Amino acid sequence: MSDTESALLNELVVAFKCLPSVGARTAQRMAFHLLEHDRENGLRLAAAMQNAIENIGHCSLCRTLTEHSICRICSDKSRATETLCVVENPSDVLAVEQATAYRGFYFVLMGKLSPLDGIGPDELGLDLLEKRLEDEPIKELILATNPTVEGEVTAHYISELAAKYNVNTTRIAHGVPVGGELDYVDSSTLSHAFDGRRNY
Amino acid sequence: MSDTESALLNELVVAFKCLPSVGARTAQRMAFHLLEHDRENGLRLAAAMQNAIENIGHCSLCRTLTEHSICRICSDKSRATETLCVVENPSDVLAVEQATAYRGFYFVLMGKLSPLDGIGPDELGLDLLEKRLEDEPIKELILATNPTVEGEVTAHYISELAAKYNVNTTRIAHGVPVGGELDYVDSSTLSHAFDGRRNY
Repeated sequence: MSDTESALLNELVVAFKCLPSVGARTAQRMAFHLLEHDRENGLRLAAAMQNAIENIGHCSLCRTLTEHSICRICSDKSRATETLCVVENPSDVLAVEQATAYRGFYFVLMGKLSPLDGIGPDELGLDLLEKRLEDEPIKELILATNPTVEGEVTAHYISELAAKYNVNTTRIAHGVPVGGELDYVDSSTLSHAFDGRRNY
Repeated sequence: MSDTESALLNELVVAFKCLPSVGARTAQRMAFHLLEHDRENGLRLAAAMQNAIENIGHCSLCRTLTEHSICRICSDKSRATETLCVVENPSDVLAVEQATAYRGFYFVLMGKLSPLDGIGPDELGLDLLEKRLEDEPIKELILATNPTVEGEVTAHYISELAAKYNVNTTRIAHGVPVGGELDYVDSSTLSHAFDGRRNY
Protein backbone atom coordinates (compact mmCIF):
# COMPACT_ATOMS: atom_id res chain seq x y z
CA MET A 1 0.00 0.00 0.00
CA SER A 2 1.80 3.12 -1.16
CA ASP A 3 1.22 6.60 0.21
CA THR A 4 -1.16 9.02 -1.41
CA GLU A 5 -0.15 12.48 -2.60
CA SER A 6 -1.63 14.12 0.49
CA ALA A 7 0.05 14.07 3.90
CA LEU A 8 -3.26 14.66 5.72
CA LEU A 9 -4.85 11.79 3.80
CA ASN A 10 -1.94 9.51 4.71
CA GLU A 11 -2.34 10.44 8.38
CA LEU A 12 -6.05 9.64 8.18
CA VAL A 13 -5.38 6.25 6.58
CA VAL A 14 -2.87 5.36 9.31
CA ALA A 15 -5.29 6.54 12.01
CA PHE A 16 -8.11 4.37 10.65
CA LYS A 17 -5.97 1.29 11.19
CA CYS A 18 -6.54 1.55 14.95
CA LEU A 19 -10.09 0.23 14.40
CA PRO A 20 -10.58 -3.52 14.87
CA SER A 21 -10.21 -5.62 11.69
CA VAL A 22 -9.30 -2.57 9.59
CA GLY A 23 -6.14 -3.15 7.56
CA ALA A 24 -4.29 -0.89 5.14
CA ARG A 25 -6.65 -1.38 2.22
CA THR A 26 -9.87 -0.96 4.20
CA ALA A 27 -8.41 2.11 5.92
CA GLN A 28 -7.66 3.66 2.55
CA ARG A 29 -11.14 2.84 1.26
CA MET A 30 -12.71 4.43 4.36
CA ALA A 31 -10.62 7.59 4.01
CA PHE A 32 -11.42 8.00 0.30
CA HIS A 33 -15.09 7.26 0.93
CA LEU A 34 -15.41 9.96 3.58
CA LEU A 35 -13.52 12.58 1.58
CA GLU A 36 -15.19 11.85 -1.75
CA HIS A 37 -18.74 11.09 -0.74
CA ASP A 38 -19.58 11.73 2.88
CA ARG A 39 -17.77 14.65 4.48
CA GLU A 40 -20.78 15.70 6.54
CA ASN A 41 -21.16 12.32 8.22
CA GLY A 42 -17.39 12.15 8.59
CA LEU A 43 -17.41 15.33 10.66
CA ARG A 44 -20.31 13.95 12.68
CA LEU A 45 -18.36 10.73 13.32
CA ALA A 46 -15.24 12.67 14.37
CA ALA A 47 -17.30 14.75 16.81
CA ALA A 48 -19.15 11.70 18.19
CA MET A 49 -15.87 9.89 18.68
CA GLN A 50 -14.24 12.78 20.52
CA ASN A 51 -17.35 13.41 22.58
CA ALA A 52 -17.70 9.76 23.60
CA ILE A 53 -14.01 9.30 24.41
CA GLU A 54 -13.84 12.47 26.50
CA ASN A 55 -17.10 12.00 28.39
CA ILE A 56 -17.69 8.29 28.79
CA GLY A 57 -16.22 6.81 31.94
CA HIS A 58 -17.20 3.89 34.11
CA CYS A 59 -20.27 3.43 36.31
CA SER A 60 -19.16 3.72 39.92
CA LEU A 61 -21.32 0.73 40.87
CA CYS A 62 -21.02 -1.78 38.02
CA ARG A 63 -18.04 -0.41 36.02
CA THR A 64 -19.85 -0.46 32.66
CA LEU A 65 -19.27 2.34 30.14
CA THR A 66 -21.42 5.38 30.83
CA GLU A 67 -21.24 9.16 30.77
CA HIS A 68 -23.02 9.34 34.14
CA SER A 69 -21.53 8.51 37.51
CA ILE A 70 -24.13 5.75 37.88
CA CYS A 71 -25.41 3.97 34.74
CA ARG A 72 -29.05 3.59 33.74
CA ILE A 73 -29.36 0.00 34.87
CA CYS A 74 -27.78 0.63 38.28
CA SER A 75 -30.11 3.59 38.87
CA ASP A 76 -33.21 1.55 37.98
CA LYS A 77 -35.05 1.16 41.31
CA SER A 78 -37.43 -1.46 39.89
CA ARG A 79 -34.72 -4.08 39.49
CA ALA A 80 -34.21 -7.01 41.82
CA THR A 81 -31.48 -6.17 44.33
CA GLU A 82 -30.83 -9.75 45.39
CA THR A 83 -29.21 -10.94 42.13
CA LEU A 84 -25.97 -9.70 40.60
CA CYS A 85 -24.70 -10.95 37.24
CA VAL A 86 -20.94 -10.79 36.57
CA VAL A 87 -19.96 -10.34 32.90
CA GLU A 88 -16.68 -9.56 31.17
CA ASN A 89 -17.67 -6.66 28.90
CA PRO A 90 -20.33 -3.95 28.46
CA SER A 91 -21.48 -5.69 25.28
CA ASP A 92 -22.28 -8.77 27.37
CA VAL A 93 -24.74 -6.67 29.43
CA LEU A 94 -26.47 -5.74 26.18
CA ALA A 95 -26.59 -9.36 25.04
CA VAL A 96 -28.09 -10.57 28.35
CA GLU A 97 -30.63 -7.72 28.48
CA GLN A 98 -31.71 -8.47 24.93
CA ALA A 99 -31.92 -12.25 25.17
CA THR A 100 -33.11 -12.96 28.69
CA ALA A 101 -35.74 -11.94 31.20
CA TYR A 102 -33.04 -11.20 33.77
CA ARG A 103 -33.82 -7.95 35.56
CA GLY A 104 -31.28 -7.87 38.36
CA PHE A 105 -28.09 -5.84 38.45
CA TYR A 106 -24.74 -6.37 36.74
CA PHE A 107 -21.08 -6.18 37.52
CA VAL A 108 -18.82 -5.61 34.51
CA LEU A 109 -15.23 -6.81 34.91
CA MET A 110 -14.00 -4.93 31.79
CA GLY A 111 -11.77 -7.91 31.09
CA LYS A 112 -10.83 -11.25 32.63
CA LEU A 113 -8.06 -12.53 34.85
CA SER A 114 -4.94 -12.86 32.72
CA PRO A 115 -1.76 -12.68 34.83
CA LEU A 116 0.51 -12.82 31.76
CA ASP A 117 -1.06 -9.58 30.50
CA GLY A 118 -0.80 -8.05 33.96
CA ILE A 119 -4.54 -8.25 34.57
CA GLY A 120 -5.17 -9.28 38.16
CA PRO A 121 -8.06 -8.82 40.62
CA ASP A 122 -7.35 -5.08 41.00
CA GLU A 123 -7.65 -4.39 37.26
CA LEU A 124 -11.06 -6.11 37.24
CA GLY A 125 -12.32 -4.04 40.15
CA LEU A 126 -12.85 -7.09 42.34
CA ASP A 127 -12.35 -4.92 45.45
CA LEU A 128 -15.47 -3.02 44.36
CA LEU A 129 -17.32 -6.30 43.82
CA GLU A 130 -16.23 -7.53 47.25
CA LYS A 131 -17.56 -4.36 48.83
CA ARG A 132 -20.92 -4.88 47.12
CA LEU A 133 -21.07 -8.49 48.28
CA GLU A 134 -20.44 -7.26 51.80
CA ASP A 135 -22.82 -4.28 51.82
CA GLU A 136 -25.76 -5.31 49.63
CA PRO A 137 -28.43 -7.94 50.26
CA ILE A 138 -27.20 -10.09 47.36
CA LYS A 139 -28.48 -13.67 47.49
CA GLU A 140 -27.27 -14.97 44.12
CA LEU A 141 -24.19 -14.09 42.12
CA ILE A 142 -24.57 -15.26 38.51
CA LEU A 143 -21.20 -15.92 36.85
CA ALA A 144 -21.67 -15.15 33.17
CA THR A 145 -18.03 -14.84 32.10
CA ASN A 146 -17.17 -16.45 28.76
CA PRO A 147 -16.57 -20.21 28.67
CA THR A 148 -12.89 -19.76 27.80
CA VAL A 149 -9.93 -20.78 29.94
CA GLU A 150 -9.51 -17.25 31.33
CA GLY A 151 -13.27 -16.83 31.75
CA GLU A 152 -13.49 -20.07 33.77
CA VAL A 153 -10.53 -19.08 35.94
CA THR A 154 -12.13 -15.70 36.55
CA ALA A 155 -15.47 -17.32 37.45
CA HIS A 156 -13.70 -19.69 39.84
CA TYR A 157 -11.80 -16.85 41.53
CA ILE A 158 -14.98 -14.82 41.99
CA SER A 159 -16.91 -17.81 43.34
CA GLU A 160 -14.30 -18.19 46.09
CA LEU A 161 -14.62 -14.50 46.84
CA ALA A 162 -18.41 -14.87 47.13
CA ALA A 163 -18.07 -17.86 49.44
CA LYS A 164 -16.32 -15.60 51.96
CA TYR A 165 -19.51 -13.54 52.20
CA ASN A 166 -21.86 -16.53 52.10
CA VAL A 167 -23.30 -15.49 48.77
CA ASN A 168 -24.61 -18.31 46.59
CA THR A 169 -22.94 -18.42 43.13
CA THR A 170 -24.38 -19.91 39.95
CA ARG A 171 -22.76 -20.41 36.55
CA ILE A 172 -24.70 -20.05 33.29
CA ALA A 173 -25.20 -23.39 31.51
CA HIS A 174 -22.82 -24.54 28.80
CA GLY A 175 -24.01 -27.11 26.34
CA VAL A 176 -25.26 -27.74 22.84
CA PRO A 177 -26.46 -24.43 21.31
CA VAL A 178 -30.17 -24.31 20.55
CA GLY A 179 -30.68 -25.22 16.90
CA GLY A 180 -27.27 -26.93 16.80
CA GLU A 181 -26.65 -30.54 15.90
CA LEU A 182 -24.78 -33.01 18.12
CA ASP A 183 -22.34 -34.15 15.48
CA TYR A 184 -21.28 -30.56 14.70
CA VAL A 185 -20.60 -29.62 18.32
CA ASP A 186 -17.04 -29.89 19.62
CA SER A 187 -16.29 -32.62 22.15
CA SER A 188 -15.67 -30.24 25.04
CA THR A 189 -19.09 -28.64 24.62
CA LEU A 190 -20.78 -32.05 24.30
CA SER A 191 -19.01 -33.26 27.43
CA HIS A 192 -20.27 -30.15 29.28
CA ALA A 193 -23.77 -30.82 27.96
CA PHE A 194 -23.70 -34.38 29.39
CA ASP A 195 -22.31 -33.31 32.75
CA GLY A 196 -24.98 -30.63 32.98
CA ARG A 197 -27.95 -32.87 32.08
CA ARG A 198 -31.20 -32.29 33.94
CA ASN A 199 -34.35 -34.29 34.72
CA TYR A 200 -36.77 -34.27 31.83
CA MET B 1 -29.08 -4.65 17.78
CA SER B 2 -30.45 -2.98 20.88
CA ASP B 3 -29.21 0.31 22.29
CA THR B 4 -26.59 0.47 24.97
CA GLU B 5 -27.11 2.20 28.31
CA SER B 6 -25.18 5.28 27.17
CA ALA B 7 -26.62 7.90 24.82
CA LEU B 8 -23.15 9.05 23.72
CA LEU B 9 -22.17 5.49 22.98
CA ASN B 10 -25.34 4.99 20.92
CA GLU B 11 -24.56 8.14 18.94
CA LEU B 12 -21.05 6.87 18.27
CA VAL B 13 -22.35 3.49 17.07
CA VAL B 14 -24.79 5.19 14.68
CA ALA B 15 -22.05 7.52 13.42
CA PHE B 16 -19.69 4.60 12.69
CA LYS B 17 -22.25 3.18 10.28
CA CYS B 18 -21.39 5.92 7.74
CA LEU B 19 -18.16 4.05 6.97
CA PRO B 20 -18.24 1.69 4.00
CA SER B 21 -19.15 -1.94 4.80
CA VAL B 22 -19.69 -1.16 8.48
CA GLY B 23 -23.04 -2.47 9.73
CA ALA B 24 -24.66 -2.29 13.15
CA ARG B 25 -22.60 -5.07 14.72
CA THR B 26 -19.23 -3.89 13.40
CA ALA B 27 -20.06 -0.31 14.43
CA GLN B 28 -20.79 -1.48 17.96
CA ARG B 29 -17.58 -3.51 18.06
CA MET B 30 -15.57 -0.48 16.88
CA ALA B 31 -17.14 1.80 19.48
CA PHE B 32 -16.54 -0.65 22.34
CA HIS B 33 -12.99 -1.30 21.15
CA LEU B 34 -12.07 2.40 21.15
CA LEU B 35 -13.65 3.10 24.53
CA GLU B 36 -12.36 -0.01 26.28
CA HIS B 37 -8.90 -0.39 24.80
CA ASP B 38 -7.73 2.46 22.62
CA ARG B 39 -8.94 5.90 23.65
CA GLU B 40 -5.68 7.59 22.72
CA ASN B 41 -5.73 6.35 19.13
CA GLY B 42 -9.45 7.10 19.00
CA LEU B 43 -8.80 10.75 19.77
CA ARG B 44 -6.03 10.75 17.17
CA LEU B 45 -8.42 9.27 14.59
CA ALA B 46 -11.11 11.84 15.41
CA ALA B 47 -8.60 14.68 15.00
CA ALA B 48 -7.16 13.24 11.77
CA MET B 49 -10.66 12.85 10.36
CA GLN B 50 -11.68 16.39 11.18
CA ASN B 51 -8.37 17.79 9.95
CA ALA B 52 -8.54 15.91 6.65
CA ILE B 53 -12.19 16.75 5.99
CA GLU B 54 -11.72 20.43 6.76
CA ASN B 55 -8.46 20.91 4.88
CA ILE B 56 -8.43 18.52 1.94
CA GLY B 57 -9.89 19.94 -1.24
CA HIS B 58 -9.24 19.30 -4.89
CA CYS B 59 -6.14 20.02 -6.95
CA SER B 60 -6.92 22.95 -9.24
CA LEU B 61 -5.20 21.19 -12.15
CA CYS B 62 -6.08 17.50 -11.88
CA ARG B 63 -8.94 17.53 -9.32
CA THR B 64 -7.43 14.85 -7.09
CA LEU B 65 -7.73 15.10 -3.31
CA THR B 66 -5.07 17.34 -1.78
CA GLU B 67 -4.66 19.94 0.94
CA HIS B 68 -2.64 22.17 -1.42
CA SER B 69 -4.00 24.20 -4.30
CA ILE B 70 -1.86 22.12 -6.67
CA CYS B 71 -1.10 18.48 -5.78
CA ARG B 72 2.36 16.93 -5.54
CA ILE B 73 2.18 15.17 -8.90
CA CYS B 74 0.98 18.27 -10.77
CA SER B 75 3.78 20.36 -9.24
CA ASP B 76 6.44 17.81 -10.23
CA LYS B 77 8.43 19.57 -12.97
CA SER B 78 10.28 16.39 -13.95
CA ARG B 79 7.16 14.73 -15.35
CA ALA B 80 6.38 14.44 -19.04
CA THR B 81 3.98 17.21 -20.07
CA GLU B 82 2.85 15.57 -23.30
CA THR B 83 0.86 12.73 -21.72
CA LEU B 84 -2.26 13.04 -19.59
CA CYS B 85 -3.95 10.03 -18.02
CA VAL B 86 -7.66 10.25 -17.21
CA VAL B 87 -8.83 8.16 -14.24
CA GLU B 88 -12.06 8.01 -12.26
CA ASN B 89 -10.79 8.27 -8.67
CA PRO B 90 -7.80 9.40 -6.61
CA SER B 91 -7.17 5.77 -5.66
CA ASP B 92 -6.69 4.98 -9.36
CA VAL B 93 -3.80 7.48 -9.48
CA LEU B 94 -2.19 5.56 -6.63
CA ALA B 95 -2.71 2.24 -8.40
CA VAL B 96 -1.19 3.49 -11.67
CA GLU B 97 1.77 5.12 -9.90
CA GLN B 98 2.45 1.94 -7.98
CA ALA B 99 2.10 -0.55 -10.83
CA THR B 100 3.42 1.25 -13.89
CA ALA B 101 6.36 3.31 -15.09
CA TYR B 102 3.98 6.06 -16.24
CA ARG B 103 5.39 9.44 -15.25
CA GLY B 104 3.10 11.87 -17.02
CA PHE B 105 0.27 13.85 -15.48
CA TYR B 106 -3.23 12.84 -14.42
CA PHE B 107 -6.75 14.12 -14.61
CA VAL B 108 -9.09 12.74 -11.97
CA LEU B 109 -12.78 12.79 -12.87
CA MET B 110 -13.94 12.09 -9.29
CA GLY B 111 -16.65 9.89 -10.76
CA LYS B 112 -18.00 8.81 -14.14
CA LEU B 113 -20.78 9.94 -16.44
CA SER B 114 -24.05 8.73 -15.01
CA PRO B 115 -27.00 10.86 -16.18
CA LEU B 116 -29.47 8.94 -13.99
CA ASP B 117 -27.52 10.06 -10.90
CA GLY B 118 -27.28 13.59 -12.24
CA ILE B 119 -23.58 13.28 -13.03
CA GLY B 120 -22.86 15.00 -16.32
CA PRO B 121 -19.74 16.58 -17.90
CA ASP B 122 -19.83 19.54 -15.49
CA GLU B 123 -19.70 17.35 -12.38
CA LEU B 124 -16.62 15.59 -13.79
CA GLY B 125 -14.84 18.88 -14.46
CA LEU B 126 -14.65 18.20 -18.19
CA ASP B 127 -14.58 21.98 -18.83
CA LEU B 128 -11.29 22.02 -16.91
CA LEU B 129 -10.02 19.06 -18.95
CA GLU B 130 -11.02 20.81 -22.17
CA LYS B 131 -9.11 23.90 -21.13
CA ARG B 132 -6.01 21.80 -20.48
CA LEU B 133 -6.34 20.06 -23.85
CA GLU B 134 -6.51 23.50 -25.44
CA ASP B 135 -3.71 25.20 -23.51
CA GLU B 136 -1.14 22.48 -22.87
CA PRO B 137 1.14 20.67 -25.33
CA ILE B 138 -0.62 17.33 -24.71
CA LYS B 139 0.08 14.72 -27.39
CA GLU B 140 -1.55 11.66 -25.86
CA LEU B 141 -4.59 11.37 -23.65
CA ILE B 142 -4.66 7.96 -21.94
CA LEU B 143 -8.20 6.89 -21.04
CA ALA B 144 -7.89 4.74 -17.92
CA THR B 145 -11.50 4.80 -16.74
CA ASN B 146 -12.84 1.49 -15.46
CA PRO B 147 -14.02 -1.09 -18.02
CA THR B 148 -17.64 -0.79 -16.85
CA VAL B 149 -20.57 0.48 -18.91
CA GLU B 150 -20.33 3.98 -17.38
CA GLY B 151 -16.54 3.94 -17.60
CA GLU B 152 -16.68 3.10 -21.33
CA VAL B 153 -19.28 5.78 -21.99
CA THR B 154 -17.13 8.30 -20.13
CA ALA B 155 -14.04 7.26 -22.11
CA HIS B 156 -15.97 7.60 -25.36
CA TYR B 157 -17.27 11.05 -24.44
CA ILE B 158 -13.79 12.28 -23.52
CA SER B 159 -12.25 10.84 -26.72
CA GLU B 160 -14.69 12.95 -28.77
CA LEU B 161 -13.73 15.97 -26.70
CA ALA B 162 -10.04 15.30 -27.39
CA ALA B 163 -10.69 14.91 -31.12
CA LYS B 164 -11.86 18.54 -31.21
CA TYR B 165 -8.38 19.60 -30.09
CA ASN B 166 -6.56 17.08 -32.29
CA VAL B 167 -5.21 15.22 -29.27
CA ASN B 168 -4.53 11.53 -29.80
CA THR B 169 -6.43 9.29 -27.33
CA THR B 170 -5.48 5.79 -26.24
CA ARG B 171 -7.39 3.32 -24.09
CA ILE B 172 -5.66 0.96 -21.63
CA ALA B 173 -5.82 -2.68 -22.77
CA HIS B 174 -8.53 -4.98 -21.53
CA GLY B 175 -7.96 -8.69 -21.68
CA VAL B 176 -7.05 -11.80 -19.75
CA PRO B 177 -5.47 -10.79 -16.38
CA VAL B 178 -1.85 -11.86 -16.01
CA GLY B 179 -1.79 -15.15 -14.10
CA GLY B 180 -5.41 -15.82 -15.06
CA GLU B 181 -6.66 -18.85 -16.96
CA LEU B 182 -8.71 -18.67 -20.15
CA ASP B 183 -11.52 -20.92 -18.97
CA TYR B 184 -12.04 -18.85 -15.82
CA VAL B 185 -12.27 -15.52 -17.65
CA ASP B 186 -15.74 -14.18 -18.51
CA SER B 187 -16.70 -14.16 -22.19
CA SER B 188 -16.72 -10.38 -22.50
CA THR B 189 -13.12 -10.14 -21.28
CA LEU B 190 -12.02 -12.99 -23.56
CA SER B 191 -13.70 -11.31 -26.53
CA HIS B 192 -11.85 -8.09 -25.69
CA ALA B 193 -8.61 -10.05 -25.45
CA PHE B 194 -9.12 -11.47 -28.96
CA ASP B 195 -10.07 -8.12 -30.48
CA GLY B 196 -7.00 -6.56 -28.90
CA ARG B 197 -4.48 -9.22 -30.02
CA ARG B 198 -1.05 -8.05 -31.11
CA ASN B 199 1.83 -9.37 -33.23
CA TYR B 200 4.00 -11.81 -31.27
